[in-house]
Amino acid sequence: MGQVAWKALFLSLFDYKTEKYVIAKNKKVGVLYRVVQLSILAYLVGWVFVVKKGYQDTDTSLQSSVITKLKGVAFTNTSELGERLWDVADYVIPPQGESVFFVMTNLIVTPNQRQSTCPESASIPDALCDKDTDCLEGEAVVAGNGKGSVPVWVWCPSEASAWKPLLGSAENFTVYIKNSIRFPKFKFSKMNVLATDNESYLKTCRYSQEHPYCPIFVLGNIVRWAGADFQEMASEGGVIGIQIEWNCDLDKAPSECNPHYSFSRLDNKSAERSITSGYNFRFAKYYRDVEGVDYRTLIKAYGIRFDVMVNGKAGKFNIIPTIINISSGLALMGAGAFFCDLVLLYLIKKSNFYRGKKYEEVKSSSRKSLSSPTLNGNQSPDQL
Amino acid sequence: MGQVAWKALFLSLFDYKTEKYVIAKNKKVGVLYRVVQLSILAYLVGWVFVVKKGYQDTDTSLQSSVITKLKGVAFTNTSELGERLWDVADYVIPPQGESVFFVMTNLIVTPNQRQSTCPESASIPDALCDKDTDCLEGEAVVAGNGKGSVPVWVWCPSEASAWKPLLGSAENFTVYIKNSIRFPKFKFSKMNVLATDNESYLKTCRYSQEHPYCPIFVLGNIVRWAGADFQEMASEGGVIGIQIEWNCDLDKAPSECNPHYSFSRLDNKSAERSITSGYNFRFAKYYRDVEGVDYRTLIKAYGIRFDVMVNGKAGKFNIIPTIINISSGLALMGAGAFFCDLVLLYLIKKSNFYRGKKYEEVKSSSRKSLSSPTLNGNQSPDQL
Amino acid sequence: MGQVAWKALFLSLFDYKTEKYVIAKNKKVGVLYRVVQLSILAYLVGWVFVVKKGYQDTDTSLQSSVITKLKGVAFTNTSELGERLWDVADYVIPPQGESVFFVMTNLIVTPNQRQSTCPESASIPDALCDKDTDCLEGEAVVAGNGKGSVPVWVWCPSEASAWKPLLGSAENFTVYIKNSIRFPKFKFSKMNVLATDNESYLKTCRYSQEHPYCPIFVLGNIVRWAGADFQEMASEGGVIGIQIEWNCDLDKAPSECNPHYSFSRLDNKSAERSITSGYNFRFAKYYRDVEGVDYRTLIKAYGIRFDVMVNGKAGKFNIIPTIINISSGLALMGAGAFFCDLVLLYLIKKSNFYRGKKYEEVKSSSRKSLSSPTLNGNQSPDQL
Repeated sequence: MGQVAWKALFLSLFDYKTEKYVIAKNKKVGVLYRVVQLSILAYLVGWVFVVKKGYQDTDTSLQSSVITKLKGVAFTNTSELGERLWDVADYVIPPQGESVFFVMTNLIVTPNQRQSTCPESASIPDALCDKDTDCLEGEAVVAGNGKGSVPVWVWCPSEASAWKPLLGSAENFTVYIKNSIRFPKFKFSKMNVLATDNESYLKTCRYSQEHPYCPIFVLGNIVRWAGADFQEMASEGGVIGIQIEWNCDLDKAPSECNPHYSFSRLDNKSAERSITSGYNFRFAKYYRDVEGVDYRTLIKAYGIRFDVMVNGKAGKFNIIPTIINISSGLALMGAGAFFCDLVLLYLIKKSNFYRGKKYEEVKSSSRKSLSSPTLNGNQSPDQL
Repeated sequence: MGQVAWKALFLSLFDYKTEKYVIAKNKKVGVLYRVVQLSILAYLVGWVFVVKKGYQDTDTSLQSSVITKLKGVAFTNTSELGERLWDVADYVIPPQGESVFFVMTNLIVTPNQRQSTCPESASIPDALCDKDTDCLEGEAVVAGNGKGSVPVWVWCPSEASAWKPLLGSAENFTVYIKNSIRFPKFKFSKMNVLATDNESYLKTCRYSQEHPYCPIFVLGNIVRWAGADFQEMASEGGVIGIQIEWNCDLDKAPSECNPHYSFSRLDNKSAERSITSGYNFRFAKYYRDVEGVDYRTLIKAYGIRFDVMVNGKAGKFNIIPTIINISSGLALMGAGAFFCDLVLLYLIKKSNFYRGKKYEEVKSSSRKSLSSPTLNGNQSPDQL
Repeated sequence: MGQVAWKALFLSLFDYKTEKYVIAKNKKVGVLYRVVQLSILAYLVGWVFVVKKGYQDTDTSLQSSVITKLKGVAFTNTSELGERLWDVADYVIPPQGESVFFVMTNLIVTPNQRQSTCPESASIPDALCDKDTDCLEGEAVVAGNGKGSVPVWVWCPSEASAWKPLLGSAENFTVYIKNSIRFPKFKFSKMNVLATDNESYLKTCRYSQEHPYCPIFVLGNIVRWAGADFQEMASEGGVIGIQIEWNCDLDKAPSECNPHYSFSRLDNKSAERSITSGYNFRFAKYYRDVEGVDYRTLIKAYGIRFDVMVNGKAGKFNIIPTIINISSGLALMGAGAFFCDLVLLYLIKKSNFYRGKKYEEVKSSSRKSLSSPTLNGNQSPDQL
């Protein structure tokens, strides 16, 4: 029968098989099932797709480049330095305008330090370490271990420890932040500086609620928005985080993908001097006198460090997450049906009757399905 | 009957229940269903697994460390500076070779600036602000606010504003980029410098199409590949992004996980001077004369800043995404069957007949399923 | 019949339809199906949910800000420099304490370089290039191309090439690492410095197995933990990566979200001098003599560069991944049932009997399902 059989087999491949259903004219369970279906549908459409954009593939790892440029001059008149003007070249460290920049607002100058033995050389660790937060106990030990004894040869005179705020007017300095980002997965690039033909706007605007896309910020405002006091930070030092957040729906127009700025203080803002609050560091300018002997001016710089931190999330329609979310919804429907089955088969009266109809015993046995409620009763939940 | 019942119950747990199917010998629907199945299968295997590697767990947050080192010397002969040789220590800022480095190709030198009152001191903001892009209107106001008046005490002489390109030969400088990455999720580390025993190759090679894994780049080429003109950038300044992309399939050999380099210009490349194009910054070298008075040389540096930006994606087989994708395919099959049911039950002639067979009414009622097409007709779509 | 029909239709919407099942009293298959179900359940609960936390939404893109501060002084006594004390301002580059910092432990000083023609000027490229790894063949060519000839005007004297380790005691320096992170998706922020009221602890502690949350590290230990030899690195230079990993389960208390530190060497640790090992760079201090002529001290700095790299992963309960994982489990159950069907219908004896019961032919034909094993036999697998 080979010939015939194969032909029949091939044809039979195109028979359509469909589950056989039992219609239980029971309104209670029917209504329950509709409610379950509707709530699943609502969850899927409302929450997964509309709110969470479950139809999108997302990229959270973005490439970012930040360019910063400060503006402003400050004038000071102190006994040590006399009248002095501070411009960008004087107070910005490092000068090249990276994503992390420091504005020096206060400093302790120890001029003309030379290598020699000072009277207070024994207390060198203390000399290196004023009352400020950066002073760690046991430094003498650390410093000494190298030679096994505290060195007697030091930079003299040792560092002064009195200090006072200087560049209070730094509050009015402005910083221009250029940020260009790229989402590699979607090959999408953008800058935070809007492509406007109105150059003068970019020169005169200042970031604020009214100008959310202006890339020029007033330092005083940044610090205020971060919930800190500028004058206090200017004297003690501190770190401010400038968060730029890109949350882009690439299914919409690129013009709707815009940065959102937020500001926060990163060093511990605890009022009392604590090891985790404040910010300062030491650096030196080196000179050489006529005899060719090196000497330096040690500067302990206090000021505000700004960290520009960029992060973002881009979403774009993608078939795979869409299908995964839809099919998870379908599977839920199946679970819902299973749940309603339990109700139909065990919780309502006449459940025995329905059980008998739903389950058809095929073992050639005298038992009739109706006669064994308990048995079927406990089997069915496992039918999942 | 407890005894018996429990035993029966326990045994019944191991009865196997299987859906009852109706075979509709209808070739049209049968073929349709096969087509649906095949297309779903094709999507799952072809797109999800082969193309999109749906069986992999991915890690897009990588740790990266970049070390850069420049090479090259340039020679200039200008009226201001006379003959001068520029080596790495002169033109690289900062010198320590981080992922963001700046090559000074042009500069305005204002030597011997001292704090005093210049004739043009009234116009100090302009003095600080030549025709270049970094000049923001209203700076005077900003600068002034601090003291309430424009300072009269400034660095003199004020900055020169004439300038011309200098280090044109920077085009031939080379940069050696060392990049070591790590995918924390998979504990996988690699460097962009191939572990070759051929040291001389690493010393002589230059990155190009022919040498895609050579870590040494000629600046001129980088700028050209970024679609910019080196000489124009050298004089105006600019920012170039060097993107290193790691796209690793960790199911293959580590040797197949290699970096891919691409280059782009990050500042606005608009030809006309705009606030968003060009790159420059000011810094000063401080000196002290015999009387111990400080003076400085103010340098406004133009040049090309290079941002090395690293990102990557690693994928490795993981059971969970595999199963999620497979089961989403299975759920789709269910949806396909539902769709074919609709066709079978409502769109073909004899659908009434099939509907009657598929749905078996169990309410002890005189109605026969065949007699109520409309009813079943509208029920079934909801049967999902 | 409109009236009646519509009413009936509406009512029929709330009829409940449920699949019809066939109970095959076959223990073998029944047991098999239970085993399949249990293993799927075990995988879902044990692996997906307990181990892999499949109920959580994760965020791997974190914002991080790093502040570093070094402590320690070293004393050297060399023929060139005589007795000398090195403090933070001398050996830390850059001074402002960013996430990448360099500790100078060895240096070649070439004092009083002036622009002129040296005897060895012809070999200027070699002068710029000692035996060290940073020397690339063919530099002369590169350097020359600019002018078309090798420049004769150079910094003299040319760089010395003898060198010896200096700051061995840097081994005892300490670095204080402040790291504040933020998971944008969950609006969760934290610092690696525990909010302790015990200030003295933070001043005296040192990171170690016993003090895993102390933010102060001894350089020597870091290098040792990275598997390198400090003295060798101090003389040759090298790069150490300090990885800070945050692995936070935000369903638990924030106090359980703590950093984990690990250390690794990032430059090639191959003992023999290779182009990829070691770390050094050149910079210069510029002076001006009485006649106002510039001269410089060229310093080739060797030392250890530390890259603080922060990454993390935060997870928090989210309904969507939970449901996706559950429903993938449900779909698996379906696949399991399909597999058991195959066994029941083709692999056991009496399979013909079951096949006949499961599949009900509805074409009004004389054939009886039992009479066509082959046909059904090959159809059913496709029933999925």
